[in-house]
Amino acid sequence: MTGPHRAVVLFSGGLDSTTTLAIAVRVHGYACHALTLDYGQRHRAELRAAERLARRYGACDHAVIRVDLGRLGHSALTDSGRAVPTGGEGEGGIPVTYVPARNTVFLALALGWAETLEAQRILIGVNAVDYSGYPDCRPAFIAAFEELATLATKVGVEGHPIRIEAPLLHWSKAEIIRRGVALGVDYADTVSCYDADRAGRACGDCDACRIRRLGFLEAGIPDPTRYRKRPPARVRSG
Amino acid sequence: MTGPHRAVVLFSGGLDSTTTLAIAVRVHGYACHALTLDYGQRHRAELRAAERLARRYGACDHAVIRVDLGRLGHSALTDSGRAVPTGGEGEGGIPVTYVPARNTVFLALALGWAETLEAQRILIGVNAVDYSGYPDCRPAFIAAFEELATLATKVGVEGHPIRIEAPLLHWSKAEIIRRGVALGVDYADTVSCYDADRAGRACGDCDACRIRRLGFLEAGIPDPTRYRKRPPARVRSG
Repeated sequence: MTGPHRAVVLFSGGLDSTTTLAIAVRVHGYACHALTLDYGQRHRAELRAAERLARRYGACDHAVIRVDLGRLGHSALTDSGRAVPTGGEGEGGIPVTYVPARNTVFLALALGWAETLEAQRILIGVNAVDYSGYPDCRPAFIAAFEELATLATKVGVEGHPIRIEAPLLHWSKAEIIRRGVALGVDYADTVSCYDADRAGRACGDCDACRIRRLGFLEAGIPDPTRYRKRPPARVRSG
Repeated sequence: MTGPHRAVVLFSGGLDSTTTLAIAVRVHGYACHALTLDYGQRHRAELRAAERLARRYGACDHAVIRVDLGRLGHSALTDSGRAVPTGGEGEGGIPVTYVPARNTVFLALALGWAETLEAQRILIGVNAVDYSGYPDCRPAFIAAFEELATLATKVGVEGHPIRIEAPLLHWSKAEIIRRGVALGVDYADTVSCYDADRAGRACGDCDACRIRRLGFLEAGIPDPTRYRKRPPARVRSG
């Protein structure tokens, strides 16, 4: 048994997962295996960012696993014929960027890799504050997956369960940014935009851009994001 | 809401999942969407059988989703450099054909497709009798996944949970075969062998072949499997 210090970190190269990786490496001291899922996302710049950033932020290893989610849902994130939303997440509804069971699939693949590596931790950068409309970003979902993981694996059945950690779960975007900056994360590197161009420059208009810009504003930290055009002077609060 | 009569059936074209599909269509009357996972399995004949058999046994739709499990574990099922076992499943241990978290990944993908289709059932042909060494073939695992599915999906959160059904869970291989034959399944069509050739002919020696042959013997039904060579006269009981 390799001990509790080995972790699989779900890592997209975005703001949340880069902060999660920095916490895993610099706060917890885990030996981190970054896992990126190539699920046909339209924002391919995300994959290039992940490849560049995993080692820069201290992962000892980085894997990309392909899983074809094109059949699942009609999400704006995987369907190039559908516009990404720019009007805010809406009131209580589930956003059109929702990919059915996406985090369940991601955690399942992370679980398989964690068991292979004899890792005892999986870290995921989900956040229940800004993404309250996504059922699979809630604390109860994370707790249920951890219970499943114990029953689903050889190590779990043998009494060494794999724990699921979601350090950003209850933080606001501004808090996430403040913690990341304190840990030395340069957010100019990270790509959050649903519609980034090949160079990783953000649109400034989609919901991911909007939440991110508002986060920097609330954190009182200059927004280092590279935009394709000059962003509007004022960020709508949704 | 499309009602409780739409189901996603995890379907490999093997003996267990073909029986499961026959039960879903002919016993429950579900409108069945068969889902085959192409996970780099070495027994590619399984995929060809699935394509051929899904509609023959009444699925209204068939999808193949690719997911790369080559990084997960060092299973004899995905690693062409490793011999498939022929010596029985062993005593209490977990077989070398175990792919870490495989059923978790499969059910997660089925869950995403079920939510997309507005299906309210997922059927999986797991069996706790012959595969007791696999943690993710146990009743507690299926129950935990069903609980997760309720929390993971928009429909679950809205009060219409997707149910996980595993009709073969407590049956012996002989019982599965007897029920399938009664429903009109022609097992000559199905491929179970871990090492089938391109034509789908079975080796007769691997653990999957051994369990299957023993099942026909115990059911008192002539084994219709197409073997590459004449099988040994006597089946070892492990």
